[in-house]
Amino acid sequence: MKIAIIGTGSVGQTFAVALTTLGHQVIIGTRNVEEKLSVSAKDGFGNPSFSEWYASNKAVKLGTFAEAAVFGDIIVNATQGSHSLNALQLAGSEHIKGKIVIDIANPLDFSKGMPPSLIPELSNTHSLGEEIQNKFPESFVVKTLNTMWNGLMVNPNLIAGGDHTVFICGNNEETKTTVKFLLHEFGWRETAILDLGDISASRGMEAILPIWLRIWTTTQNGAFNFKIVN
Amino acid sequence: MKIAIIGTGSVGQTFAVALTTLGHQVIIGTRNVEEKLSVSAKDGFGNPSFSEWYASNKAVKLGTFAEAAVFGDIIVNATQGSHSLNALQLAGSEHIKGKIVIDIANPLDFSKGMPPSLIPELSNTHSLGEEIQNKFPESFVVKTLNTMWNGLMVNPNLIAGGDHTVFICGNNEETKTTVKFLLHEFGWRETAILDLGDISASRGMEAILPIWLRIWTTTQNGAFNFKIVN
Repeated sequence: MKIAIIGTGSVGQTFAVALTTLGHQVIIGTRNVEEKLSVSAKDGFGNPSFSEWYASNKAVKLGTFAEAAVFGDIIVNATQGSHSLNALQLAGSEHIKGKIVIDIANPLDFSKGMPPSLIPELSNTHSLGEEIQNKFPESFVVKTLNTMWNGLMVNPNLIAGGDHTVFICGNNEETKTTVKFLLHEFGWRETAILDLGDISASRGMEAILPIWLRIWTTTQNGAFNFKIVN
Repeated sequence: MKIAIIGTGSVGQTFAVALTTLGHQVIIGTRNVEEKLSVSAKDGFGNPSFSEWYASNKAVKLGTFAEAAVFGDIIVNATQGSHSLNALQLAGSEHIKGKIVIDIANPLDFSKGMPPSLIPELSNTHSLGEEIQNKFPESFVVKTLNTMWNGLMVNPNLIAGGDHTVFICGNNEETKTTVKFLLHEFGWRETAILDLGDISASRGMEAILPIWLRIWTTTQNGAFNFKIVN
């Protein structure tokens, strides 16, 4: 399929590699292509610059948010949650209309220091997933994969033989089914996928982040996930 | 041990039965003993009245919040989160001073309808566990067990052979160790207990409630838990 990834960070990069490896065509969208390619310094975590990464991943194309959105049949929101709405607006509601928006972002608020909390107006009684659906009512927002480290999102078999849980929610059954096919392609088995209903379940899915971050800082290991057992 | 349970609801009752079965001495505290025993109607969920339950559980004693707190070496906060601070104030800071307060409550806000959200001022950048510790600085608040149905709290072996996770946090190592002994008595094995550090981890532990509630309403089954896998 033709897939647009909005966001050039580590989550977007991980998705791009995984999707092209599976044979999908991928354009990553960014605010300013020239600017993005002009940076050659490593990022704050010591990762290679985007341009270095891009040079070694020839199957992935780079474009503006709008170019990516025009190209993609499916749009993946892999931006930082605080930038998601702006990035999708730049992508253009007319270009993502009628399309699936897979929202894997979290509305993290880094303004109060580390660890981040949730952006107040997008937490508790509201969520980023719902806000994206509200702002782009003609798109089909499917929230999933936001509750784990990006390495696991596209490769659940990295831990515990893949026997852990991925949540999914969205208002439209057909588009959720399409996204579940993609999850299967990543290695998620049917029993690992827990469909929590409409997009309002984003509230709970995003509210996992505080304990996710706490477990991560406690164990110093991001390669873990939640499994629902009963 | 002598244990005071603050709160007469189903969580308090479950704890009282489990603790007396284990040989502990238990007083349940309530706001008004006479009033509590005078109600004979079933509750809104069709459960027996407290007085009916009390009559059939002779090992459990009933007292005021303060009487229970004076008696207990350990205090269990099993109230609804919106009432916890008031109930503990009535119990008396002088009576819970120097003691362990096991906080298993959640700051649920039912004022906006079902499902409940979290009480805004006790969510995201704050929590009930922290607020109790702030208000009762001479007590040792240990948050645990709030992330699951009460039947599992005291009997983890009900599902998945007990192989799932209970979180714990608190500022004092020694008192956390005491609470871990109690968790072991309930059947929680060492590998199931995930210590998340100081009481500020309550933020994450309480923030699990929205997805817990969503899973519960989706699956119509409260006998599930989260297991951290890696």
